[in-house]
Amino acid sequence: MNQEKLILVVNDDGVTAPGIKALVEAVSHLGRVIVVAPDAPQSGMGHAITIGSPLRLEKVDLFKGIETYQCSGTPADCVKLAIDKVLHRKPDLCVSGINHGSNASINVIYSGTMSAAIEAAIDGIPSVGFSLLDYDFDADFSASKHFVTKVAERVLQHGLPLNSLLNVNIPKLNLNEIKGMKVCRQAYANWVEEFDERRDPRGKKYFWLTGKFESNDKAEDTDEWALANGFVSVVPVQFDLTAHQHIAAITKILID
Amino acid sequence: MNQEKLILVVNDDGVTAPGIKALVEAVSHLGRVIVVAPDAPQSGMGHAITIGSPLRLEKVDLFKGIETYQCSGTPADCVKLAIDKVLHRKPDLCVSGINHGSNASINVIYSGTMSAAIEAAIDGIPSVGFSLLDYDFDADFSASKHFVTKVAERVLQHGLPLNSLLNVNIPKLNLNEIKGMKVCRQAYANWVEEFDERRDPRGKKYFWLTGKFESNDKAEDTDEWALANGFVSVVPVQFDLTAHQHIAAITKILID
Repeated sequence: MNQEKLILVVNDDGVTAPGIKALVEAVSHLGRVIVVAPDAPQSGMGHAITIGSPLRLEKVDLFKGIETYQCSGTPADCVKLAIDKVLHRKPDLCVSGINHGSNASINVIYSGTMSAAIEAAIDGIPSVGFSLLDYDFDADFSASKHFVTKVAERVLQHGLPLNSLLNVNIPKLNLNEIKGMKVCRQAYANWVEEFDERRDPRGKKYFWLTGKFESNDKAEDTDEWALANGFVSVVPVQFDLTAHQHIAAITKILID
Repeated sequence: MNQEKLILVVNDDGVTAPGIKALVEAVSHLGRVIVVAPDAPQSGMGHAITIGSPLRLEKVDLFKGIETYQCSGTPADCVKLAIDKVLHRKPDLCVSGINHGSNASINVIYSGTMSAAIEAAIDGIPSVGFSLLDYDFDADFSASKHFVTKVAERVLQHGLPLNSLLNVNIPKLNLNEIKGMKVCRQAYANWVEEFDERRDPRGKKYFWLTGKFESNDKAEDTDEWALANGFVSVVPVQFDLTAHQHIAAITKILID
């Protein structure tokens, strides 16, 4: 029986962000699409979940013919709540995004977009996070949509290896300028923080997080290299954080 | 020159939690200790960072002779702010915890305790997260303190492999019942959610996150096995999330 595929759409910029609209448009012909997304922006939420307060879930009418809910929680909460209370089963695919801004390199750790995708993957659902390297509200998602459709079709058809998902980043280029997709590894990098120190009207200090992205990883097999050279980067991501290669060294340091 | 070691202490249960007091006591003889911790509980914050609102940082007098600050942000924010605005240099060691409850297996993904330790490790700081398998406010941290001191001493002496940190979980046992430390891998597992659906006084639905931990990973090289068998589990953790082993398979699925 050729049952219709069930596709969960989520994001971290909130249900009203243009990126999720583009994502819905790019996958709506591939199956039955249900959207469960935060009711407000949740950028930088990492893999936060809501334990200390309850969650709200409300049906909204945003995308023509697409069942859509907004949730008061984090991106990871949206996925958990969607599976338990909306879908009542695991979807065939979870797509997250399209994020307004890069989630390549170390940004995968801070990303709400990727945390939603990781949450679905932990539950055994084939899952992909998409991000466009353009922070603008008015970003042009047309090239992104082309790659979303392509990746979603392939993943629906072939599945993904157990305990893995995909982190797809798309350069800010027109479709005809993009050289294709490149499967690569996460570049090593970090953010160097410089907090902006200010004083409130009562004279008390407060701090805004600012920082610059620094990478000394110049290898050509990384997502940063792919994006800088006109490719869509695709990083297979895992949620086993074990540094297996260091088990022997740590045993020597701590125990022997 | 034998300069005094600088040790940053952080947690996710908040600066007033008994677990961070135990952690301070366990490392205070090893160097100059500075505490920068959340001003309120931040459990389940994953690797959240605060982008959309400013942060507060206040000096408090909680631990005799130890410079201590409370921060309005997440555990990862605390580390970033500590390095930029309090320490003005990278510490020689960052310790996070002692968490009230397990951060073994997949819990590492949701853990604020581990996100603080990961944040420090991304910055190149030798870093360890500690958790006791006891959620009680009145938990007995005496055995934990023994292992904290031992691990902190070894890490200060030997450092850790590049781009890695440690996730240390301690079973709820007396010191003489613990068989020792075991370096192991993160067990595969997930939480199966069952949201508790209620109605507020106005009749509107809301949901509390509840769930049960499920693991089918029965191998004897995992943290869950170690903890169930009386060992302290030590998992070397990495923040390169690339599933390197799947790069060829994904290339085949998406591109070839």
